[in-house]
Amino acid sequence: MTSSRTESAAGTAAGARSRFRAKYEAAAARSGSLLCVGLDPDPAQLPPGIDCLTFLRTVIEATADLVCCFKPNAAFFEADGAAGWEDLRATIAAAPADVPMLLDAKRGDVGHTSSFYARAVFETLDADAVTVSPYLGSDGIEPLRAYADRHSFVLCRTSNAGAREFQDLLVDGRPLYEHVAVRAQAWNTRGNVGLVVGATYPEEAARIRLLCPELLFLVPGVGAQQGDLQAAVRAARDAHGGGVLVNASRAVLYASRGADYAQAARAAARTLRDAIAAALRA
Amino acid sequence: MTSSRTESAAGTAAGARSRFRAKYEAAAARSGSLLCVGLDPDPAQLPPGIDCLTFLRTVIEATADLVCCFKPNAAFFEADGAAGWEDLRATIAAAPADVPMLLDAKRGDVGHTSSFYARAVFETLDADAVTVSPYLGSDGIEPLRAYADRHSFVLCRTSNAGAREFQDLLVDGRPLYEHVAVRAQAWNTRGNVGLVVGATYPEEAARIRLLCPELLFLVPGVGAQQGDLQAAVRAARDAHGGGVLVNASRAVLYASRGADYAQAARAAARTLRDAIAAALRA
Repeated sequence: MTSSRTESAAGTAAGARSRFRAKYEAAAARSGSLLCVGLDPDPAQLPPGIDCLTFLRTVIEATADLVCCFKPNAAFFEADGAAGWEDLRATIAAAPADVPMLLDAKRGDVGHTSSFYARAVFETLDADAVTVSPYLGSDGIEPLRAYADRHSFVLCRTSNAGAREFQDLLVDGRPLYEHVAVRAQAWNTRGNVGLVVGATYPEEAARIRLLCPELLFLVPGVGAQQGDLQAAVRAARDAHGGGVLVNASRAVLYASRGADYAQAARAAARTLRDAIAAALRA
Repeated sequence: MTSSRTESAAGTAAGARSRFRAKYEAAAARSGSLLCVGLDPDPAQLPPGIDCLTFLRTVIEATADLVCCFKPNAAFFEADGAAGWEDLRATIAAAPADVPMLLDAKRGDVGHTSSFYARAVFETLDADAVTVSPYLGSDGIEPLRAYADRHSFVLCRTSNAGAREFQDLLVDGRPLYEHVAVRAQAWNTRGNVGLVVGATYPEEAARIRLLCPELLFLVPGVGAQQGDLQAAVRAARDAHGGGVLVNASRAVLYASRGADYAQAARAAARTLRDAIAAALRA
């Protein structure tokens, strides 16, 4: 836990697991947890007198042995401008070397531009993984998945109410998000592509799992977004009973706004870890 | 040209034009130009010995009277981390108060998170407009278009090769991008929604214009992406012969890598301005 993130990066054989996947699997095995804690620092919800970076470092330290991943969301840092970006870099650097950092940024642009996003996320910020938007197609994704030791999670079926407006549109009798899933499977030639599959629609998650048996699924919408945890986890898991990262953000971060926020975050993370494990056994 | 960007922001009556649209129309009328210059600072292409911010300020000063808008792309700044974000802020602040700044960032997330992106773009960076991804649906767009005096350009038909993989999929006999166009039209209740419509597919642009007669179209893909300028402009223009922002980035920025880069950028911008105007008259 004391070496730098880079030193401990797992070597990745060609065609095998990404550094992200190796760290994720090791962290999940060690912690017995498929919980991913989202790091969404909202100034209005921080404990009084605690700055963003101190808050996040404290929560990371308090929960690192109970999670398989941390997921900072770029939006909350960008709202604070250059200072926020420095906080984002320091937050990613604050994770123990053996717990992966997935940057939720939903990036995507034409190829030449995406190569600069890839540099920002995987070099400047040194994140292990990132979320990406599929709308631009293959050449928008390629510069990100070219980083073979990192992971790119493609938005497939998101957890919000508006998701159905485009994602559910039927193309040749199948919803658009299934076409995205099929394409993401094809993009997985380096074993480093995953999907974002919201917890609020377990039937959809089950169908996507049939299409993509090997991909990692990031499952947001548990906790503050009130998905049914058990149904979501059981629908999204792979044939080995894993392959998912169940994300909760506010339910852990803001479990208490008092001086006990770290202990409260730890208790909330433990409860969620155990609930996910119980759902998998059920 | 000497007052601050905020002081000179055009007041926007409810239901009328956004501050962005007012500035765009005034700049277009004054310059006789529908050219938007994209600001994509690639360290490998900057003139030797010139730093990013000096380069961009110089190009802005050299071309401001020949354009209707500037469009910095976030990716190129983010690659340089917090320092890049400070350059981005300073670049947006460097535009003359009467020339709008459109941040190309292709943002979009669930509603609560998008509200932080909106704060980042429209408050912290004080951009006049932003590009957004449609994949998350209405609640992902709402926090951005809630800024009634700013403009949100929704990705519709992009200019890259991979665009057709998802954007062209047929839903009820019509390509997905037309469904996005129809929805964007519905989102335009405050007169502050536009579309990104690539220059490489003029037939598509013409169909989208029929669906959205009043929206502003940002048309990338001219110049380095080699769209047919005349066909693109004629297809995308509105009934009044305007309503478009024709973007060129590298063709202007990197017209010369020598000490004459500002004059070369100015000459390239003038040539493009005149070519766009000729296309509209043809």
